[in-house]
Amino acid sequence: MALTRIGLAGLAVMGQNLALNIAEKGFPISVYNRTTSKKPRVVIMLVKAGAPVDQTIATLAAHLEQGDCIIDGGNEWYENTERREKAMEERGLLYLGMGVSGGEEGARNGPSLMPGGSLEAYKYIEDIVLKVAAQVPDSGPCVTYVGKGGSGNFVKMVHNGIEYGDMQLIAEAYDVLKSVGKLTNSELQQVFSEWNKGELLSFLIEITADIFGIKDEQGDGYLVDKVLDKTGMKGTGKWTVQQAAELSVAAPTIEASLDSRFLSGLKDERVEASKIFQGDYSTGLPVDKAQLIEDVRQALYASKICSYAQGMNIIKAKSSEKGWGLNLGELARIWKGGCIIRAIFLDRIKKAYDRNSDLANLLVDPEFAQEIVDRQAAWRRVVCLAINNGVSTPGMSASLAYFDSYRRDRLPANLVQAQRDYFGAHTYERVDMPGSFHTEWFKTARNSMN
Amino acid sequence: MALTRIGLAGLAVMGQNLALNIAEKGFPISVYNRTTSKKPRVVIMLVKAGAPVDQTIATLAAHLEQGDCIIDGGNEWYENTERREKAMEERGLLYLGMGVSGGEEGARNGPSLMPGGSLEAYKYIEDIVLKVAAQVPDSGPCVTYVGKGGSGNFVKMVHNGIEYGDMQLIAEAYDVLKSVGKLTNSELQQVFSEWNKGELLSFLIEITADIFGIKDEQGDGYLVDKVLDKTGMKGTGKWTVQQAAELSVAAPTIEASLDSRFLSGLKDERVEASKIFQGDYSTGLPVDKAQLIEDVRQALYASKICSYAQGMNIIKAKSSEKGWGLNLGELARIWKGGCIIRAIFLDRIKKAYDRNSDLANLLVDPEFAQEIVDRQAAWRRVVCLAINNGVSTPGMSASLAYFDSYRRDRLPANLVQAQRDYFGAHTYERVDMPGSFHTEWFKTARNSMN
Repeated sequence: MALTRIGLAGLAVMGQNLALNIAEKGFPISVYNRTTSKKPRVVIMLVKAGAPVDQTIATLAAHLEQGDCIIDGGNEWYENTERREKAMEERGLLYLGMGVSGGEEGARNGPSLMPGGSLEAYKYIEDIVLKVAAQVPDSGPCVTYVGKGGSGNFVKMVHNGIEYGDMQLIAEAYDVLKSVGKLTNSELQQVFSEWNKGELLSFLIEITADIFGIKDEQGDGYLVDKVLDKTGMKGTGKWTVQQAAELSVAAPTIEASLDSRFLSGLKDERVEASKIFQGDYSTGLPVDKAQLIEDVRQALYASKICSYAQGMNIIKAKSSEKGWGLNLGELARIWKGGCIIRAIFLDRIKKAYDRNSDLANLLVDPEFAQEIVDRQAAWRRVVCLAINNGVSTPGMSASLAYFDSYRRDRLPANLVQAQRDYFGAHTYERVDMPGSFHTEWFKTARNSMN
Repeated sequence: MALTRIGLAGLAVMGQNLALNIAEKGFPISVYNRTTSKKPRVVIMLVKAGAPVDQTIATLAAHLEQGDCIIDGGNEWYENTERREKAMEERGLLYLGMGVSGGEEGARNGPSLMPGGSLEAYKYIEDIVLKVAAQVPDSGPCVTYVGKGGSGNFVKMVHNGIEYGDMQLIAEAYDVLKSVGKLTNSELQQVFSEWNKGELLSFLIEITADIFGIKDEQGDGYLVDKVLDKTGMKGTGKWTVQQAAELSVAAPTIEASLDSRFLSGLKDERVEASKIFQGDYSTGLPVDKAQLIEDVRQALYASKICSYAQGMNIIKAKSSEKGWGLNLGELARIWKGGCIIRAIFLDRIKKAYDRNSDLANLLVDPEFAQEIVDRQAAWRRVVCLAINNGVSTPGMSASLAYFDSYRRDRLPANLVQAQRDYFGAHTYERVDMPGSFHTEWFKTARNSMN
């Protein structure tokens, strides 16, 4: 048996498929699963984040030699990767934290890869990942050297946060069309198939259309109606929200998506609450179906712009904090294929950053700005229609509020700051002169009353 | 000079006033500020959270003897308190992390105190804090032994998160009344003064009324209009949001409040964006002022219930995780005076937990449920009016979406879970039978097309 250049540890669903993908591209690969095998020069781990990664590294490191490379392909917390990279460096080993997106199908046929860490390690595997990654016509393989340290994991984490946003917004579109528009699953399948031919063209819209077409093999009707309305999660969405807060980046759409997963989990509580708040919440007013479908499509698209604006700004803020120098346009490019959020929409994001790599917010890119202006009437109609029919659209309404806050030169934050100065002497700035001011609000108010 | 029983380290605005308050109540107190003084048996620190606390402890501990007690009255991260309590215990010293709310005025005349940590230490200072805390007729001194470990700090942190929510909701009410209703500052002062006579009676509504009455001494007009719309923050709101995510508790109102502070900080970006998205966003439709004022009052109240429901659930989840056994009704009681969120509203929360200490959510308490039902029409009108006039109400709309999600037995989360099973084989449950299921969605969809 010849020595192989690359090895893979962890043979669950992602590991198996990625190994097959690599082998198919002509690279000899050794795989292993908790038993040692022939020593490779590069080992990819696809095991559960956290302690299992440390255990696998301990096992592997004993068999590796100076210059060998370990790649963690899991959804790891970026700081763990930075810690391990340092530890491996002391032993003369190279280390990469590589985000892998695309689920089992992506792993098998071409995922989006987000490797970060040792540039030397990346250069060593570049020929392999360029072939293994998803290949997109006109924009190349869905992989790039993301940056130093834990940047690959961080970018994958935000990718997942954005994925939460996309899924939530699609679920809200479904809810409004079904609950207010009374569309059947068959109509929903048609609507999403149609949407998938336009600006919303994406993997998630495509599979949504598929889902509405599938009958329940265990009973009557459609399978989607039998699926329990409880959404699982694995932690990357939570981290994204926590990091947004840490970095002072507003991320209301992604937060709404996470909260919706939390609330979905409280099925029993919701059933109880629905009894307490029983009644018909719909207006009963007639709805123009065709108009509604088109409005929802536009609301979904406009909300999606806000969600991506938030995600990109989280990455931008972190890159700035850590000195990673991340290329946002390049990240949009490598998400164009292989991964769950792959979409034609990402072309527009790439172009926006090509136009201005230092763009403050996607919303103010001329092309996106125009798209939002064109869609805002429909967007407002959909959110108000939902509100008036008791259907929650937390993601769409949070996105709209984000837009309406960001585009306003004057927010009511002056009152909040006046309150803070009133009770806590936190001082304030003025609109008409520089400096920091404090007012004895209480005394002034009481004096003016006398 | 006689030996005093209690000492206070840190003589900034909070420290000074709390020391005066304690002295006034007849307890001899030694104060110090980075210089040593006579050794007291109990020392309260009111220094900046983090490293300064560790430094102060190091200085103090050298002068303390077995059985002495250190109290941290700052906004400290609860885990730091737990670490310090352990370290002090090893030296035979007692330790409390005590949340202190009320700003300088509260510190001087009676704050709300939230001590957590060593019960022995609490018993030692109980007679002092019972007198020093704010005194509320019919409900007693605003202090209680919160619980073990860092629970006092944690509760104070969430108190601050709730405070963010209250302030944001008031700011939105102001924005709608001003931007859509065209109310003058003088009218706003009257409205908030009026509101402060009813169910919204609270410190924050009272100071808001005051603020609208204060003229600018440096120029024409009212001071509130000269205050820059940029809100500062000190970290407890951020921690609350991060902890909510960590504990899987939906907290959209508090998140919206934090995000609004972040967006307020981007003043220059907003000014630029306002040029790009210039135009009149108002509908121009006539508004019935009296109706609007009453609607906004109701929307504010209903949103406030949601915000407190989220905050209390964060505390409940943490208490459960840590085994603190916190008494939520008692917390509502000690917030009734002294602190920034003091309000008549807290009586209702106390009563709700008195009725059912294990209440899943404030929303389903019979009294709150009825209050929301009575106010929901106005609530929906206000949010839609704001949306149609381009005024963002992120807190109110997030609260409404929270209510509309929580009270629905069926959410569109079935689609999200179907998507997760489609691309990641994450499995799903069914509504009609127990078990965990996986479907080959892709193959099934493609087969059904052939």
